[in-house]
Amino acid sequence: MSELELIAAFQQLLTNRSPRVVRWSGDDCAVVRARAFQAVSTDAMVDGVHFLLDHPGVTPADVGHRAMAGALSDLAAMGADAGEAYVALGLPPGLASADVVALAGGMEELARRTGTTIAGGDVTRAPVLTIVVTVVGWADREADLIGRDGARPGDVVVVTGPLGGSGAGLAILRGEADGPPALVRRHLRPEPRLAAGRALAAAGARAMIDLSDGVATDAQHLAQASEVQITIDLAALPLEAGVAEVAQQLGMSGPELAATAGEDYELCACLDPAAAGALGDAVTVVGRVTAAPDGGAPGLTLAGAPDDRPLRGHQHPVG
Amino acid sequence: MSELELIAAFQQLLTNRSPRVVRWSGDDCAVVRARAFQAVSTDAMVDGVHFLLDHPGVTPADVGHRAMAGALSDLAAMGADAGEAYVALGLPPGLASADVVALAGGMEELARRTGTTIAGGDVTRAPVLTIVVTVVGWADREADLIGRDGARPGDVVVVTGPLGGSGAGLAILRGEADGPPALVRRHLRPEPRLAAGRALAAAGARAMIDLSDGVATDAQHLAQASEVQITIDLAALPLEAGVAEVAQQLGMSGPELAATAGEDYELCACLDPAAAGALGDAVTVVGRVTAAPDGGAPGLTLAGAPDDRPLRGHQHPVG
Repeated sequence: MSELELIAAFQQLLTNRSPRVVRWSGDDCAVVRARAFQAVSTDAMVDGVHFLLDHPGVTPADVGHRAMAGALSDLAAMGADAGEAYVALGLPPGLASADVVALAGGMEELARRTGTTIAGGDVTRAPVLTIVVTVVGWADREADLIGRDGARPGDVVVVTGPLGGSGAGLAILRGEADGPPALVRRHLRPEPRLAAGRALAAAGARAMIDLSDGVATDAQHLAQASEVQITIDLAALPLEAGVAEVAQQLGMSGPELAATAGEDYELCACLDPAAAGALGDAVTVVGRVTAAPDGGAPGLTLAGAPDDRPLRGHQHPVG
Repeated sequence: MSELELIAAFQQLLTNRSPRVVRWSGDDCAVVRARAFQAVSTDAMVDGVHFLLDHPGVTPADVGHRAMAGALSDLAAMGADAGEAYVALGLPPGLASADVVALAGGMEELARRTGTTIAGGDVTRAPVLTIVVTVVGWADREADLIGRDGARPGDVVVVTGPLGGSGAGLAILRGEADGPPALVRRHLRPEPRLAAGRALAAAGARAMIDLSDGVATDAQHLAQASEVQITIDLAALPLEAGVAEVAQQLGMSGPELAATAGEDYELCACLDPAAAGALGDAVTVVGRVTAAPDGGAPGLTLAGAPDDRPLRGHQHPVG
């Protein structure tokens, strides 16, 4: 299949699901009727760095899904409404056209479920499969979009959803541990928490981030941007079913795995305790915000971490 | 230099030059105060496919410039005002940090001159240098943004600037011909015609495209999108100084090279003859639009092309 035939196959696969997208593929640019504020993020994923396309149990549709999910998760972390995605694909010579179409299908299926329109892109040759997804989200007011920098002493720290599933699933996929297939799926098919992000923003979240690297790293970003001290209680982290058992096989505790493995793509937010309480079961309180120490740098404390091995978040586990 | 150190170096290098960019690097997303209509394009460039980083005479700043120029040229082709750029860099292990910073400097310098803010990005490892630039342009009215589909019988076809310089420069760079260094510079440092694009849109351009593949290919896109017949008079193409001499060494005529070599990043537009006349020396009339033939497909005729070798535009010459 030539580059032009592939683009034609994509055009058949993709749907413009927004009346705001007034020009779509087939022109020099997509044209979109804007709302007042735009949130934009770009995420690159490279075979051998962020995923292993040839790994048993990993399909091209999984890879497409994960690339789209990782980018949309950044919109969730701002509390934005998902809008459009622009996808650049670098395709290696040996990759079958059917696999490329399946990969695009994995992206489009998640786009459909989240109300996102894949509105443009580029296709080129590359030595290995390379996927760059740029997503645009929208809001009507600047205050509706939540950065990392608004946490205040007295806030609590909450997370959505159970954690550790993606890291445990990766270990199973790699043959390092046994565990339920649901955890592997959690790794291969993360869900961007767009609705939860909007709900947290509406509830008054002052700072928010998505858990791509693990709460041990990501909460540190919140602390630094907000210039506060954050304490996370490891024992309070909600664990996905089966995570503790996988962690044990890896020689660590469930909370350690949950705090460091990353790629759960749940959200972590700081907000007033009463506002957090009003969210009920949608979030779990896992920590608190205090003033940065006198004369010291803002930062993160992990309460309950083993003294003999400081926990650090992982960057980009290969799946 | 680690990934984090590189990002810190970029942040020092880059400037937020727009009061509309309200959140910039250091958050999950950039946040931009929108205008009414947004134009977006994504361009991928890969070492060995779109450029040769190790080629003598090619600097990392050239490569950065060309990647940014190619993306901004798509905004020019819509008549949009340049807004923001988002850059994903895939960096191979052997690439020196100083080269990466120089590459980003080449991008930022063009961003500065065009009023563009590099508002976000991603950095990752990759087997070869990979650059994906997503650009966002803006307009206040939908009608200010010109697609490919509005050409009408009776329109003339115009181009900005002299053509063929990039293709001739590439031949010189490759050692296939001798010629002035200005042509090599034309290849390595193309200028996105943003002001010309806005002027053409304001003058009433009905269809517009940038000349990335050569007028022999790009005017065909206009003909197909507009469902008309376009005739380009090869003898009317304005040639950059020195192009005819380089073409002769390559065994072709100057207009042949100008029509097929691509990457000039000038603009090609269809508009009313009187409107074209009002633009004076800013454009050159190179052809005309007629109705698609009865029962035939819309398409392109190159008047003056040699009968024995049909001209086709080149895709992605390597520079």
